[in-house]
This record gives sequence, structure tokens and C-alpha cells, in this order.
Amino acid sequence: MGWGDLGVFGEPSKETPNLDQMAAEGMLFLDFYTANPLCSPSRAALLTGRLPVRNGFYTTNAHARNAYTPQDIAGGIPDSELLLPELLKKAGYINKIIGKWHLGHRPQFHPLRHGFDEWFGSPNCHFGPFDNRAFPNIPVYRDWEMIGRYYEDFKIDLKTGEANLTQIYLQEALDFISKQQASQQPFFLYWAIDATHAPVYASKHFLGTSQRGLYGDAVREIDDSVGKILEHLQKLGISENTFVFFTSDNGAALISAPKQGGSNGPFLCGKQTTFEGGMRTPAIAWWPGHIPGGWVSHQLGSVMDLFTTSLSLAGLQPPTDRQIDGIDLLPAILQGKLIDRPIFYYRGNEMMAVRVGLYKAHYWTWSNSWEEYSQGIDFCPGQNVSGVTTHTQEDHTTLPLLFYLGMDPGEKYPLSFASAEYQRVMQQIHFVVQQHRATMVPGEPQLNVCDKAIMNWSPPGCEKLGKCLTPPKPDPKKCFWPH
Amino acid sequence: MGWGDLGVFGEPSKETPNLDQMAAEGMLFLDFYTANPLCSPSRAALLTGRLPVRNGFYTTNAHARNAYTPQDIAGGIPDSELLLPELLKKAGYINKIIGKWHLGHRPQFHPLRHGFDEWFGSPNCHFGPFDNRAFPNIPVYRDWEMIGRYYEDFKIDLKTGEANLTQIYLQEALDFISKQQASQQPFFLYWAIDATHAPVYASKHFLGTSQRGLYGDAVREIDDSVGKILEHLQKLGISENTFVFFTSDNGAALISAPKQGGSNGPFLCGKQTTFEGGMRTPAIAWWPGHIPGGWVSHQLGSVMDLFTTSLSLAGLQPPTDRQIDGIDLLPAILQGKLIDRPIFYYRGNEMMAVRVGLYKAHYWTWSNSWEEYSQGIDFCPGQNVSGVTTHTQEDHTTLPLLFYLGMDPGEKYPLSFASAEYQRVMQQIHFVVQQHRATMVPGEPQLNVCDKAIMNWSPPGCEKLGKCLTPPKPDPKKCFWPH
Repeated sequence: MGWGDLGVFGEPSKETPNLDQMAAEGMLFLDFYTANPLCSPSRAALLTGRLPVRNGFYTTNAHARNAYTPQDIAGGIPDSELLLPELLKKAGYINKIIGKWHLGHRPQFHPLRHGFDEWFGSPNCHFGPFDNRAFPNIPVYRDWEMIGRYYEDFKIDLKTGEANLTQIYLQEALDFISKQQASQQPFFLYWAIDATHAPVYASKHFLGTSQRGLYGDAVREIDDSVGKILEHLQKLGISENTFVFFTSDNGAALISAPKQGGSNGPFLCGKQTTFEGGMRTPAIAWWPGHIPGGWVSHQLGSVMDLFTTSLSLAGLQPPTDRQIDGIDLLPAILQGKLIDRPIFYYRGNEMMAVRVGLYKAHYWTWSNSWEEYSQGIDFCPGQNVSGVTTHTQEDHTTLPLLFYLGMDPGEKYPLSFASAEYQRVMQQIHFVVQQHRATMVPGEPQLNVCDKAIMNWSPPGCEKLGKCLTPPKPDPKKCFWPH
Repeated sequence: MGWGDLGVFGEPSKETPNLDQMAAEGMLFLDFYTANPLCSPSRAALLTGRLPVRNGFYTTNAHARNAYTPQDIAGGIPDSELLLPELLKKAGYINKIIGKWHLGHRPQFHPLRHGFDEWFGSPNCHFGPFDNRAFPNIPVYRDWEMIGRYYEDFKIDLKTGEANLTQIYLQEALDFISKQQASQQPFFLYWAIDATHAPVYASKHFLGTSQRGLYGDAVREIDDSVGKILEHLQKLGISENTFVFFTSDNGAALISAPKQGGSNGPFLCGKQTTFEGGMRTPAIAWWPGHIPGGWVSHQLGSVMDLFTTSLSLAGLQPPTDRQIDGIDLLPAILQGKLIDRPIFYYRGNEMMAVRVGLYKAHYWTWSNSWEEYSQGIDFCPGQNVSGVTTHTQEDHTTLPLLFYLGMDPGEKYPLSFASAEYQRVMQQIHFVVQQHRATMVPGEPQLNVCDKAIMNWSPPGCEKLGKCLTPPKPDPKKCFWPH
């Protein structure tokens, strides 16, 4: 979902009354970022509080590549990483993930081995349908075992766009919250739904209700679901004890536009890029009785902050034996403070850009290759900023492209290299980058090896369902990441 | 000011708390249009309820040109046009214009000859400073006579951007409202301030307060002023008797970006173009006790509707002896109805595009000439939609470019000519266009002739101030309109 997809962020059809209301009752973050322009690494960063280049969710197969966890990926979340639910357990929290895990699908990466107590959802994206020969259909798990597969037991009609997944995930959430409230146990719910990812779907009740088409239907269903979750917390009388945060794992995928792609508002490009459209995401904090309604924050925030902030809320400290990139946002959320901190925009193994205050410096630019672009793969459709949305990997490290996002949120007007402003700001930014690089110890890259033999052929529980498939022979290869 | 300049429309720095509040207390229009991508014709349309091509605010010197009223323009608002204040007079209204008139500066075009009772402001834009030899500085009038000139008696510091104009215009508004309330006379106040037009300015109190730079300072000052006007109405106890509408005369001027130009949010291009960025404008209706707070309307609206709607509010009928393009929006504003009506996008003498429902068809496309573009004049910076933002005038009348704005508000993905959707929608649109053309009687073009002899050399009242200047010899010529 993109920054521009919510009414409160300026979507021209204003079809998200519940999320807009959540913002009106809570705090709206206008400068909130995901840790990566792609799903898996962002989610790994959210749960570890660390940049993907530290937690291993990147590739070194080629320079500055977007890599994720398709079902032939060999890697996943390393045991050495400490995940938010693992830590929250120490404070007595019951942790549930509903939806897409995306941190590896092999047994050692199972979410219940990494701190979660319950899981309902899938290890990978809901791509398909597959023929169960070349590729197996993606399994849906309840806790340790699969209970079916997408397109088989969990229908997604690609023709009509109808699927009940968001409704099923919503019901799971409401049930879990009720159960936790009844047992008076603190809980962490990671509601990581697949929507609005392509192939886009919505349930029958929402189909055709948006003026934005199927994508808008999906947004409306998410909006409605969030409203129902908040309402549920209020009905149960635990809203003042429950911190809720809404955000997205990357900008809207303009490659899927207009039929399956959303809006990044005034920002440049979309998912897959380190321009604002790829990484600035909608973000709302909600906590009645603690956050005064209608607050708007310009705090530079990151999904990684949700790790540290959640620990803080639970009275826990973040680990001290490793570099944590997330900060505790509570002073910003509860007291309206502005904490000075940079935002780093990585693509795979490369720091592409950095934001300090209202300035953003691009050390590297790339949208995708000319070869891909000439085949119609365009992450910046209708947008071309000369020397910025480049189709060759451009190294600007000696003279970064500098933008003042205050006047130029769309990254269209690089500051003159000769200006005093450029000199002054870049001196400050170079210092921040130097400090960052000095402490950077990249993790073991997890997204280098792919093997069709390790796909979801026979997930645990398949035998009970008669849904075990025979894998091909092992054939590990370097994964190919084209952009 | 652009659609994207208000927080409630998604400006990433959210610096318009008063306008956002006005929307929260009133009705926000998401699909509201000006009648022209340029100032003078839009303002003429607002006050006459008629398209510029009918009321004469266009040129036939060249095809599809943006023309306005610089100080050497010979034309202005024809006597044959009926202006809103002329009509409101019949219902006992006292009418005041504060700010830029822009409907002609020669004696016969004076606003007090066209229905206004009071005027404080200037006949033209605040360009300058001039040397009073080649060009005179623009006069500021109080009622019939000038009381000074911009840059001389009304300072604008182009270096610092400091000017008190918005404050002066605000005080004029508050005083007028107080006076009308005291005398219990109904009033029409046309608060037509120059800001945020380039050269952008703000008063000292607002300078440097926006993260968006000087342009943002100006927006903040307007926002603050609107807040003070609404507060004043409430304090005087007349807010429930006063209908207030906020809008802009064209989209943000991207040619002036990033230093002096605003934001058109997710829309394509800006001022001077018939893409959405040029003509879709912020719009808010406010009328406590009548409009329930927080309403959002998708009614297709136009500045010309303010003519008809205002008459309706005053219990008057629009003239029946001429074609009126504005409709009465009260059913939309008070009952949330959706009135079916098209929006026509004109550039000079040419209907460039038309919107029917969520579809927009471009019959002609042009941003500006290659010649201008190659000199750095760019109305679509960072945006290039192939075949759409063209630099030659492209005639698509036999096969218009069709966009579905619901999915594609940015006009980036023309529908396939071969699709059933295209066939179905264009049939409907062609019918609407046919009807429109059948009733189209263009007015006498007012913006064809320019003459330096008729500039503001010696406006009425200049002799009292010792500010009369000697005009050069008459030298009427065809005005040159490059785009």
C-alpha cells in the first residue's frame, strides 16, 4: 500500500474512513519509512529492529538488487537474530502472526521457532495458481502445520478478483483478541495480511464498491477491517491498554498500476526503488487515552522503530549485543518530541540514499536496467527525472544528488552542487554516513541461493490432508535478481 | 494554489490546520475544477458563471492559447456580461472585492462599474518592480481611485520575500465583515488575494515558518487568514448566516517550482495545462448549522457553480437570456446529492478535454511548444507521459485519449482504443460534447489586442498622489501568447 492510498494522505477518492478516523483519534506520521522497497526485507527489519543488510535479508549475487523470499529461496531468518516476539515472551506476551510470514518457509525458519505462539497464514506471497508440478501452490498454515493451499482450499478467483482472505484474517484477529482479553494475557498481534499485494483481491461484499477499481476494493476492505479491529478493542474495554500501529512494508507497486497498483501521492516512483514513492509509507499510531487525537508528527520514523518502541511499551530493553537501527518512538508519540535520526535507503547490499532532516542525498541511483525497462517494466511510469530515475546504476558517492524534501517532496530538483546550501548540508550528511558505515557489519546474506527442490512441496501436515507433493532433485543455484 | 497544497488533500508537511479544520466542519470537494488553467479567465468565469470562451476571456490570436490580462491588455469584462455582484445587488447585497480584479484595468472595466460597491486591491498581478518608464508599477485601488503602487507604497521585498499584502487584505476583510454585521446588511465578499502567485511573499510573522520554504510561508499565511475570517464570523454570531467557499483559480504553477511553486498532489502537470494538475483545485464549503461537518463530496464542481449557487442562496434566479455553465450546488452541499454534469477543459478557443463521471477524454493535448520547452519552460517537470504531455498540438478529436480517473488520477494510462470500455464511454462522451458544441456561441475575444499606451500610467486618483505617468503613443498590436 502506498503513502497516497489513504484519504488522510490525500487519495483523491477518500475511501478510507476508518483509517482516517484512526488518524483523527491518534497520531499521523507523515515521514515514516519502511526499511526496504520490498516486502521480505522490510518485514525482517520490522521484527528484528535491524536493517536487512544486518539481519541477512539481502543478496550479494549482484549489486543493489531487490531480493525477497519466493518459495525456492534457501535462506530465511537466521537463528542468531532476535525477533520481537521472542523478546516480548519474556514479559509474558502471547504472540500471534496472522498473514504472510515471508521470513523463510523451511522448517528452521518457522515463525513458531522464532517467538510466535500462534500462526495463521502463509509463508510466501499468494502467487498462483500453480499446477503442483513445476511449482506447488502456497500452503496456508495454522500454527505448526499446513491446513490447505491457496487456490485449492483458500480460493482466489483471478477473473473476478474475489477472495475471502482478508475476512478470514480479520476473523482470526478478532478471535485472538477476544481470547487474550478473556484470559487477561498481554498480547502482540502481527496482522500481516497479503492484501493489497498483486494479484489483488477482495471479498464479495467489497467487490465493485470502490471508484478505484479492484485495488480500491481491497483498500476499502482493509480499511473496514482495521475499523472493526479498533472497534473490537473498544468494545472489550482494552483500547486504552492496546497500542495499535498501522503501516505498509513498501510503497505502492506502480508496475502493477493502474489496475493493481496504488498511489504514492506526490512522491517519485514506487515499490522496488529508493525514491520516496518506494519507501515512504502510511503510518498511524493509535492508543486512546494516551495519544491525544489529531496529532500529526514529522518525526522521521521507520518500521524498525516498531521493534524498539514495542519493547519499550512492554518495559523491556532492546538487545545490547548487536546494532539495533530502530529507535524508541514513545517520546515522539506521547510527548510530540522530535528525535534527530537519519533514514537509510538500502537496496540489497548498497546504501542508495540517506535522509537527514528535510534533506535527502542519493549516493546511488537506479530504477531498473534498460533491458528490463525496454521490456515494459517501469517502476516510475509517467515520471522521468533526468539523471535521477536512471536505468544504469549511477554512482554519485563523490557528489551525491541532494534534494530538499520540504520544497521538493517529489525529488525533481537536485540542489546545485555549487551552492552553499549543498556544501553545508552534504558536510553534515557525509558525517552521518561515515558514522553509519563505520559500524556496519553486514550479516550473512540469506537471499543468494534458490532451489526448486525446497519449495512448498510437502509442508508439515501435508500427509493428513493428502497434499504432499514429490519434490524434484536438489539443484541449488544463485538466485537471479534482475532489479 | 494547487490541489495538493492543503494538509487535508495530502500535502506531506500538513501545514494548513485552519483550512483542514474548515473542511472538518464543512464539505470537502475532491473533484472541483477551475474554468481555465490560468487566472484571469477563471476569475471571469467565477463572476459570470460562464466559460471564458463565452464571456470573452480568451484569444483567437493563435490556437489553444493561455491568455490573461497583463497591464497592456486592451480588453476586459464586457458590459454585456452580468456579474454576480450586479445580480446580488437586486437582493440588497453590498459587494466588495478585496485583492486582484484581473478583469481589465481600463475605466470601463472597473469593478465598481460591474456591480461591486467597494474595492481594495489591484487590477493586475503584483509583478514588478518596474521602472515607471518601460512599464508602470501596478496601482492599488481603494474604490474608484488608486491609493498607491506596488513596490512603491505597498512594499514587496523580492530578496527576503517579505510583504504585508495578505495581512492588509485580511484586515480589509475583517473590517468589511464587521461593518456589514453592524449595519445588518447582507454582503458578498470576494476575497481574491494575490498570494500564492509568484513572486511569492509572506509577512514577517510567517517568513521562514514553513518547512516548504517561502511558498509554504505564503500558504500558512493564507491558512491563518482564512482561520481568522471564519473565527470573526463566529464571534460576530453570523457564521450560520454566512456561506463561505474556499478555492483557487488554477493549479499550482510547477514552472515556478520548487522555490515558488506548490503541489498538485498526484495529478499530472500544473497551471497552464488542461491536465488535472492544471485545473483540479482545492475546494471547501463551510456553513455551520447547514453543512454537517466532515462531509466529503465527489460532486463534479466548477468555480462557475459559485455564481449560480450564490444566486440560489440569495433567492435569485440566474439570467435566462444567455447560456450559464455554472449549476446550483446546494443539493450537493446540503443534501449530499450527486448531480450529473460534465466538466469542460478549455485552453483559449479550444475545448481540450471533457470529464464525464470518472472518465476524462482529451480531444487535444499540448503542454507547450518544443521551442519553449527547449528553453527550460516546463509545465510538467519530472513528468512525461508519452503521447499525452505533448509538445506539439495533437488533435485527437477523431479518437480521443480516454482516462479512467478512478484508477488513474494521474492520467498516465490511456485506455485501449480497442476496448469495449472505450467504445461504450466515448459514445456517451461524444454525445455530451456534441450537445455542448451545438449551444456554443463564443463571445467577442477580449484578449487579442495589447497596447503599451494603455498600461496603468495614470489611473484615476494618480494626480492627488503625484503618481501620474506619461504614456507612450498608442500602438495597438496583437498580443503574443506563446503557450
